[in-house]
Amino acid sequence: MSTTPLKGIRVIDLTQIYQGPYAAFLMAAAGADVIKIEPPGGERLRGRGGKFTPLSFAMLNSNKRSVTLDLKTPEAKDLLKKLVADADVLLENFAPGVMDRLGLGWDVLHELNPKLVYGSGTGYGLSGPDKDQLAMDHTIQAASGVMASTGDEGGPPARAGGAPSDLIGGVHIYAGVLSALVGRGVTGIGTLVEVSMLEAMFFTLCSEFAAYHSRGEVPPRDSSRSPSGASPYGIYQCADGWIAIICVAESHWHGIARTIGRPELIEHDNFNAAHQRRKRDAEITALIETWSLTLARDEAFALMRDAKVPVAPVKTLDEVYQDPHLLARGSLNPMNHPQMGMINLPASPIRYSNYEQVPVDFFPEPGEHNASVLGELPGISADVLADYTARGII
Amino acid sequence: MSTTPLKGIRVIDLTQIYQGPYAAFLMAAAGADVIKIEPPGGERLRGRGGKFTPLSFAMLNSNKRSVTLDLKTPEAKDLLKKLVADADVLLENFAPGVMDRLGLGWDVLHELNPKLVYGSGTGYGLSGPDKDQLAMDHTIQAASGVMASTGDEGGPPARAGGAPSDLIGGVHIYAGVLSALVGRGVTGIGTLVEVSMLEAMFFTLCSEFAAYHSRGEVPPRDSSRSPSGASPYGIYQCADGWIAIICVAESHWHGIARTIGRPELIEHDNFNAAHQRRKRDAEITALIETWSLTLARDEAFALMRDAKVPVAPVKTLDEVYQDPHLLARGSLNPMNHPQMGMINLPASPIRYSNYEQVPVDFFPEPGEHNASVLGELPGISADVLADYTARGII
Repeated sequence: MSTTPLKGIRVIDLTQIYQGPYAAFLMAAAGADVIKIEPPGGERLRGRGGKFTPLSFAMLNSNKRSVTLDLKTPEAKDLLKKLVADADVLLENFAPGVMDRLGLGWDVLHELNPKLVYGSGTGYGLSGPDKDQLAMDHTIQAASGVMASTGDEGGPPARAGGAPSDLIGGVHIYAGVLSALVGRGVTGIGTLVEVSMLEAMFFTLCSEFAAYHSRGEVPPRDSSRSPSGASPYGIYQCADGWIAIICVAESHWHGIARTIGRPELIEHDNFNAAHQRRKRDAEITALIETWSLTLARDEAFALMRDAKVPVAPVKTLDEVYQDPHLLARGSLNPMNHPQMGMINLPASPIRYSNYEQVPVDFFPEPGEHNASVLGELPGISADVLADYTARGII
Repeated sequence: MSTTPLKGIRVIDLTQIYQGPYAAFLMAAAGADVIKIEPPGGERLRGRGGKFTPLSFAMLNSNKRSVTLDLKTPEAKDLLKKLVADADVLLENFAPGVMDRLGLGWDVLHELNPKLVYGSGTGYGLSGPDKDQLAMDHTIQAASGVMASTGDEGGPPARAGGAPSDLIGGVHIYAGVLSALVGRGVTGIGTLVEVSMLEAMFFTLCSEFAAYHSRGEVPPRDSSRSPSGASPYGIYQCADGWIAIICVAESHWHGIARTIGRPELIEHDNFNAAHQRRKRDAEITALIETWSLTLARDEAFALMRDAKVPVAPVKTLDEVYQDPHLLARGSLNPMNHPQMGMINLPASPIRYSNYEQVPVDFFPEPGEHNASVLGELPGISADVLADYTARGII
């Protein structure tokens, strides 16, 4: 079909940094008309890249239009309300209470447009004793148990690489908003959709909570080993890098033992059952690394892969950014940006066989679409826009 | 409203372990009728808990019904097709090609029910050179750059705690399926929705890719420090634990300097700008820990919080599992399971102000709903079900 899943859905996107912008990006990539509202001068993340826009901003803001509004002014509040009156979705990831203090909270906007779906992303949620704590990915990793579960045995807690809390929060907002749009198809009424990063992260630790529950005590930290004690399970050093291996079936163990040249261990009493291997994890690591340290990473990886063992090379960031698989699939799109030069912009991780794929398009400049979007609103002439621009309202 | 966003949506859920079951759980929690299809004897994850069902299975399978089908038999294939004929959604997270080899692939099911939305979750996607690589959270962490970005400076790559790839993959499936249901409301036609864990993880590393792009080289690994070099940013030791602090605004630095009793550093030339602090991260860490090591974690946390610094205690797993905030919000629900005893089951991280919240209900036993679900199908009498049960078909 030459259409997209969200064609005709208009999103007013007040979000910033990572969590909310990812939700809005996913909607834009599915064909929604996403209007990013930024303060005059642009969203904070734009300025975090030194000389140029940071790649993170480019990744998260493809395919959006940009309108600038200084929401502290009555004129801008009025413009926002006019935009909302005709929109399907509003997204925001301010701290709880900010929209209410602007006079633009859920109650006000719902009254204005009862069909509006209002997506709120916060760190801790809109209620509960911790709701007003400042939240960023780093602190949510601490509060959620991710830091407690990352790091070496006997060592301090550590941070997981990336910003998993922000991004998983963002995709939950997107999913919740879409569920609300499905519901609206039946009820005709919009809703507030609320997502907290803390709650979204809880599920990522299901192995760790299961280990805690079954043992009756918190298992010792060692994030590079299996929470359930499965072995082999870890990161093994090669001559020039590392491979990650996991063994969750006897056939995997057979493949590993054969590949490292120790087929006699397959049926050896010390290794022929998961509970036996669990007790000998250090010995198994030594056996595997005796083999892997003699090989290049890619060679060790290929031999394990060919033996049907779940394995992957530990890829470096530059390898991932130029991954032939991601390029072949069109997940990464090399594009030449006028200021940033050649960059690989990712498409949405969600694909639809029966819909057109939205081609990845560059992020907008701040206010690039002020005239085309705001000029459509009743009573907003070119003269009004020129006046608002001169006064810093847009 | 006394209804739910997905009331009336029927989901046939063939998924297993973490990724797919999380997608199905989120749909059930939003009110869909989720029928979990398991092999007779039950899904693999049920058996991974030793004596009892693991808590991970309980967390991911609340509010579903269970039907057992041995999909290698023609009778069970026929039952599945009958279920699909009347369903809105089918979910599966088998390796690419498994459903086709069973004669139950997208083409077959789309022909049978053109309105069906078919959600596929894989590690690497349904196309591309790496599509047939065995994938689990552990190996996707390696292939995606998460392991390369986790761990200490100068040390080996490390695994992030939890199973972020599985869960973020799952919520993308849910979001994609819902987008397809919105599209179906307009087009009348279903679609295959495809999500790969690898692609879903790419976005979580947007800070790291931005640092790589702006520097022109891969930054040294140190996941507990800021990829962009912001300082203070890290995990600081207290007398009895750790706190996580992040400083992304001058006001945060002012709060930190005052709280550690060094207000003279606020305007000191060495510290009064982000680029100055960046160069003195080790010194700043020493300044903070000179203070924090004299205090209990919760005391240090409260003082920083009161100074409006983004901070959180590094909570242990048992603390998170009994978090007063999560309990107060109803995110965690203490429930007494006949076999497992008292467990805290999480609700969906997505809430809707204008819809009924689905109360968390225990996971089903394997085949618990064979009679009620399969007995509804045309031509399937109680005698047929008894015969199928005896022959191990269901």
